[in-house]
Amino acid sequence: MTIWAEVPEGSDFPIENLPFGVVRPAGAPARVVVRIGDHTLDLAAAGIAPELTAQPTINALMASGRGQEIRERAGELLSGNDRSDLLHSVDDMHVVVPIAVGDYVDFYSSLHHATNLGHIMRPGAEPLLANWRHLPVGYHGRSGTVVVSGTPVARPEGLVPDPADGVPRLVPSRSLDFELEVGFVVGGSPASRIHPDDADRHVFGVVLLNDWSARDVQGYEYQPLGPNLAKSFATSISPWVVTIDALRRYLVAPPVQDPQPDPYLRATRPWAIDLNLTVELNGWPITSTGFADMYWTFAQQLAHTTVNGATTRAGDLFGSGTVSGPTPGERGSMIELTWRGAQPLTLGDGSLRSFLEDGDTVTMRGWCGGETAARPRIGFGEVTGTVLPTPKRGA
Amino acid sequence: MTIWAEVPEGSDFPIENLPFGVVRPAGAPARVVVRIGDHTLDLAAAGIAPELTAQPTINALMASGRGQEIRERAGELLSGNDRSDLLHSVDDMHVVVPIAVGDYVDFYSSLHHATNLGHIMRPGAEPLLANWRHLPVGYHGRSGTVVVSGTPVARPEGLVPDPADGVPRLVPSRSLDFELEVGFVVGGSPASRIHPDDADRHVFGVVLLNDWSARDVQGYEYQPLGPNLAKSFATSISPWVVTIDALRRYLVAPPVQDPQPDPYLRATRPWAIDLNLTVELNGWPITSTGFADMYWTFAQQLAHTTVNGATTRAGDLFGSGTVSGPTPGERGSMIELTWRGAQPLTLGDGSLRSFLEDGDTVTMRGWCGGETAARPRIGFGEVTGTVLPTPKRGA
Repeated sequence: MTIWAEVPEGSDFPIENLPFGVVRPAGAPARVVVRIGDHTLDLAAAGIAPELTAQPTINALMASGRGQEIRERAGELLSGNDRSDLLHSVDDMHVVVPIAVGDYVDFYSSLHHATNLGHIMRPGAEPLLANWRHLPVGYHGRSGTVVVSGTPVARPEGLVPDPADGVPRLVPSRSLDFELEVGFVVGGSPASRIHPDDADRHVFGVVLLNDWSARDVQGYEYQPLGPNLAKSFATSISPWVVTIDALRRYLVAPPVQDPQPDPYLRATRPWAIDLNLTVELNGWPITSTGFADMYWTFAQQLAHTTVNGATTRAGDLFGSGTVSGPTPGERGSMIELTWRGAQPLTLGDGSLRSFLEDGDTVTMRGWCGGETAARPRIGFGEVTGTVLPTPKRGA
Repeated sequence: MTIWAEVPEGSDFPIENLPFGVVRPAGAPARVVVRIGDHTLDLAAAGIAPELTAQPTINALMASGRGQEIRERAGELLSGNDRSDLLHSVDDMHVVVPIAVGDYVDFYSSLHHATNLGHIMRPGAEPLLANWRHLPVGYHGRSGTVVVSGTPVARPEGLVPDPADGVPRLVPSRSLDFELEVGFVVGGSPASRIHPDDADRHVFGVVLLNDWSARDVQGYEYQPLGPNLAKSFATSISPWVVTIDALRRYLVAPPVQDPQPDPYLRATRPWAIDLNLTVELNGWPITSTGFADMYWTFAQQLAHTTVNGATTRAGDLFGSGTVSGPTPGERGSMIELTWRGAQPLTLGDGSLRSFLEDGDTVTMRGWCGGETAARPRIGFGEVTGTVLPTPKRGA
């Protein structure tokens, strides 16, 4: 398709992508846009579904079931007469969290990550617990602290046993970590007991997600009801919701599961995503992996979440769980990359890291395709965040 | 105070209470009301803060910090000229969930409940885990499935190992339970790192809460990330948000904590609530207990939830955890009352229960005071729900 809008070579956001986001222009209310190249297209100003796009979130649009139609209308506009007046440089825009998050559920669906964590936490024991291959293990996280890429993240305090006397005391976390994840955003009408083969009727789009984690806080608090404060201080997402429609050509078959799961988790359609992921720490590459070999797919996660009758809402968000590949260079968290600090990372500037230090910036990127014209690049942009020191008490 | 509105003797809702709720009158939009006796007072029609009360939830009212002022204005109206035209019988109203729930966090703060569960789950071992007396253990639950009293609850399905071969299969839960809890609703402006002595600036009001639980599903799924599907299918709350202002005379000192917790959890003000709680199963009393001796208070739960920098939102809900007292007649769940089915309950009609059966109705009630004129009854009404069979597949 020939379009009048300029798209730089290698951009994450060619005409085939058109992800949705929300921007707040200076002195104007927030509104829904699609991104094209380095610009945003103001949908309401273009007269495209203003009842859904002159909105501070994409929730109503996602609930309407009209996402694909709106992307098609935006594509027609971009390939018709020049309407540069509707484009704004993304650098001039305040980009905000695009969704009002309903429930946020975080999973644990990478076989390599769960195996690594099992080896680190329970050396010598079977790394996977008995339930892991039978259901996508997950828990509810805090939706109110989902922040957009670029938001600084203060190092959290939490109770950690003092090595001197074993008494737990409130301290800034000494093992602050990231987790490389992919997030799925739910649209459509409320639904329950969703069949995995219907997942694309309920999942609207995909973002990158950094599940910041305080390992020491988690280690002390998590029995018997799971992580709480170790995760609830912040979860960062990329601002551009890449639609399932844009990703269809990159849906591939997931790994074969053994044992075969219960029928409610069995899909016949391919729900893995051939998606490349990288992590940089202060600009130095530390991880490069792929999303396609996750053990549990988003379709299975959605089927599992709703099999007990729980309903979805447009705006629900679920995280894939940390994405780690089979090799050491593909690990999606510091605790894996450094084997809980036993093997510190050396960054390109020669500095060492066991976990994250104040001032560190973590940047995750993701993209599908881009190798040939038949596989246009569908990119996610980035999710980035810088660690700030714990605020002083009373501040 | 003399009022013109009729309040039946022993009502949960005298003039000193005036809890907030939301009703949807036939053919009219939902609106915020206060309850007086067996009636609701239409605040917007009375001209009381219509910008906050002509609303489908009480969230804006809670965020405004004007709850006490609005209750006082309602009290003045009820003690002035007769305005019976503004009252409606609660029986004529469709009563709905009064809040748009932000994050829902469920705690585990009764020493007796945690001890009972420890004995049942880990016989012969120390019943309390090492962290229990150092922090209020809690986890995030599903806010999207919070329902109002009266909503039927379908028995959830979940993966449970088959006793014949040990393979987990999707079955209707065989150990469906209730949990008697008290829920706290957050108001005010977003806040983090809240001091427990400031809790009443952030907690707007209180409801009764039934944390429905599928014990067999929980037992299989909960390691290592905590309960998920065992709880996420439904959480029922009572419809009338009793304000902290109305409860002030019933705030009492909590039990002394040993060991003393970290300073961020230490309060000097009394944050226990002298609140009586009962549970009926099919109309037969099965539990009667008190809320005052909960080990961790709502003020400590709020301080804990925000100590890592996590922010509150008006509409956040947190559950106390199951309320159980020290004696067998004070247990707040079936698993405790029947010791996991080993000692079935005999109801008043002679029928036996290990867990809940299809058709069973669980009703919880709560109230403060009522013994003397100096201690007016501040009641919560009830939270009730009837168990329905698991829907057929494809239904």
